[in-house]
Amino acid sequence: MTTYNAACMPGDGIGPEIIAEGRKVLDAAGEKFGFDINWTDFDTGAEKYLQTGELISEDELKELGKFPAIYFGAIGDDRVKPGILEKGILLAIRFYFDQYVNLRPIKLLKGVETPLANKKPEDIDFVVVRENTEDFYVGIGSRAKAGKQRDHLEVIRDLYSVKFGIDVETDSDELAYQIGVVSREGSKRVMEYAFDLAQKREKKLTSVDKANVLTDVYGLWREVFEETKKGYPNVTTEYNFVDAVTMWFVKNPEWFDVVVTPNMFGDIITDLGAMIQGGLGLAPGGNINPKGTSMFEPIHGSAPKYKGKNVANPLATIWSGSLLLDSLGEHAAASAVVSSIEHSILAKAVTKDMGGSMHTSDIGDWIAKDILR
Amino acid sequence: MTTYNAACMPGDGIGPEIIAEGRKVLDAAGEKFGFDINWTDFDTGAEKYLQTGELISEDELKELGKFPAIYFGAIGDDRVKPGILEKGILLAIRFYFDQYVNLRPIKLLKGVETPLANKKPEDIDFVVVRENTEDFYVGIGSRAKAGKQRDHLEVIRDLYSVKFGIDVETDSDELAYQIGVVSREGSKRVMEYAFDLAQKREKKLTSVDKANVLTDVYGLWREVFEETKKGYPNVTTEYNFVDAVTMWFVKNPEWFDVVVTPNMFGDIITDLGAMIQGGLGLAPGGNINPKGTSMFEPIHGSAPKYKGKNVANPLATIWSGSLLLDSLGEHAAASAVVSSIEHSILAKAVTKDMGGSMHTSDIGDWIAKDILR
Ligand SMILES: CC(C)[C@H](C(=O)O)[C@@H](O)C(=O)O
Ligand SMILES: CC(C)[C@H](C(=O)O)[C@@H](O)C(=O)O
Repeated sequence: MTTYNAACMPGDGIGPEIIAEGRKVLDAAGEKFGFDINWTDFDTGAEKYLQTGELISEDELKELGKFPAIYFGAIGDDRVKPGILEKGILLAIRFYFDQYVNLRPIKLLKGVETPLANKKPEDIDFVVVRENTEDFYVGIGSRAKAGKQRDHLEVIRDLYSVKFGIDVETDSDELAYQIGVVSREGSKRVMEYAFDLAQKREKKLTSVDKANVLTDVYGLWREVFEETKKGYPNVTTEYNFVDAVTMWFVKNPEWFDVVVTPNMFGDIITDLGAMIQGGLGLAPGGNINPKGTSMFEPIHGSAPKYKGKNVANPLATIWSGSLLLDSLGEHAAASAVVSSIEHSILAKAVTKDMGGSMHTSDIGDWIAKDILR
Repeated sequence: MTTYNAACMPGDGIGPEIIAEGRKVLDAAGEKFGFDINWTDFDTGAEKYLQTGELISEDELKELGKFPAIYFGAIGDDRVKPGILEKGILLAIRFYFDQYVNLRPIKLLKGVETPLANKKPEDIDFVVVRENTEDFYVGIGSRAKAGKQRDHLEVIRDLYSVKFGIDVETDSDELAYQIGVVSREGSKRVMEYAFDLAQKREKKLTSVDKANVLTDVYGLWREVFEETKKGYPNVTTEYNFVDAVTMWFVKNPEWFDVVVTPNMFGDIITDLGAMIQGGLGLAPGGNINPKGTSMFEPIHGSAPKYKGKNVANPLATIWSGSLLLDSLGEHAAASAVVSSIEHSILAKAVTKDMGGSMHTSDIGDWIAKDILR
């Protein structure tokens, strides 16, 4: 029997409850398909941060690096300023392990209600491949008081002087700046991943950008896409500006097969995608380094107000677990998990947010049993 | 009788056809409500650029500055690289005249089909106030070959060295960067505009940002919002991360009254808004400097493939004309224009894209007649 080692980081809020259900299901899948998962728990999140000031240490990251997969719940807490936990834990892991693919399937399962009129499961079935290590997520920026001139380049240069130790005259007009970085290699590798995926699906790939305004970063992105597509002559390609893509997700989701997008736009359009597939309760995600440590997590947050109430919907987490199994090479088990999620929905064995009456802790049991049947 | 001077820039593709309809309607509104508009035409766009290399000159901008309002059709042409006309004309005007408010009403008119299930005109009726002069639209960025190190800050510093004349070692790994700038004053003025508007409506204002990742620019944005709201104790406020706001536009548009957003996120969410109100054919916009020259334009582009076919839907342009009248203080005329647009839709006097059989050039006549009735 194969044994896999995996890390588990339940995190904050509803995190521990939904991860518990996910583990029930993955363990059942192992029993059915002949493998074992050996879980190692890691404690991170708001509680630890508030008590010790620690987010995630270099040692912990090194330890995590021994595992092919991390099963992640959620982080976030109203007592902590926005950005601290997100950047200090979640983004830290994505960047440290160079998880350059953020994989987000947008699929309307049978029995799920979509807010879109006249759309059926066969109309909503595509995958967003979000670049996950560059763009405006690199965390470079600053704040400074600066001269009142509206010549921004001048101002930025001044801000840079501040950063690099030269004085600058101050004034009441305060500025902040933020820098996004896109590299040729960074774009190429995620596009290749997306093209490979498209080849296994309907052979259609849409690239998202805003090359008509952010001409520098997305001009490069587009150039790399033009080059990369030469290697995949059997894949049909198109460009969509990010503003337009939000329209077509809503109006014609059936047009999409695989979508590749820079990091920040990917954040936005996958939440929209989550909604058209029935809401955040149903949207899974994987942060993938094909040759390293990957992390799997629901797209939703820690929902502090539902913590400990046994009402959170664990389906997004269970589905993320299916992506985790896929990354381990357990494809049959991965498919079985998604099928059993669909069975639970059709049987109305779901939580209140989906119109059911079951508790969080019932769902994992139900789905695990269905898999083992 | 009052006479207003206004500039007119039809632009590319379907621009001239839709602007012609808009002018018919605004002129009729003048006839009905007792004012005259004295139009001055300006020639800009792809054709001129391809023939002369000129986008918009300082002289033309100065000339435009004599008018309180510019009626703008659309720009864009497949023969020109993305970004050249957009940045060289449209954004140039927005920035030159410091049109810091991009006003975008999202309203489902009676008789219009929305792609959302179970949503009615009373559910979709809000206004997005998009900041229009800062953020990632400032056009600061560059491309350079740089060392392979993944320490982006280092790389950026190197890129800056290039920019400011110092040499940097080159390598095969190419990078591009883009800088966004948010200022205290720039945020405050657009927020005040949004609060003022909310006070005239349902007294609810939603601020959009991504302060949990782009902590520098949107951290400042949020801080300014916190301060500004103190001056408007009767307005209820809330924050939405940009990813979440796309979900709620689709799931619960009835929650929104006024939404204030940084520039780039505003671009994205107003296209989504346009779709839920029935599509780009129906989405108007105003670029407003309350004390200077403002510009009114449909949100859609120049649709080159429909050029000269007399099939383009002019309703977004006509509605933008209503915003133009509003900016001139002709509020009754402005309302009459929107009512007559609604009448034309209910009478199915619409173009093919909306299920009708009328041509572009019929629509202005129909609506003008309705106003004069
Ligand atoms: C929590 C936040 C940092 C994160 C992101 O912006 O990537 C989340 O929204 C997501 O999409 O995974
Ligand atoms: C054409 C483009 C520059 C413009 C923008 O991004 O602002 C358009 O999409 C809009 O929303 O007015």
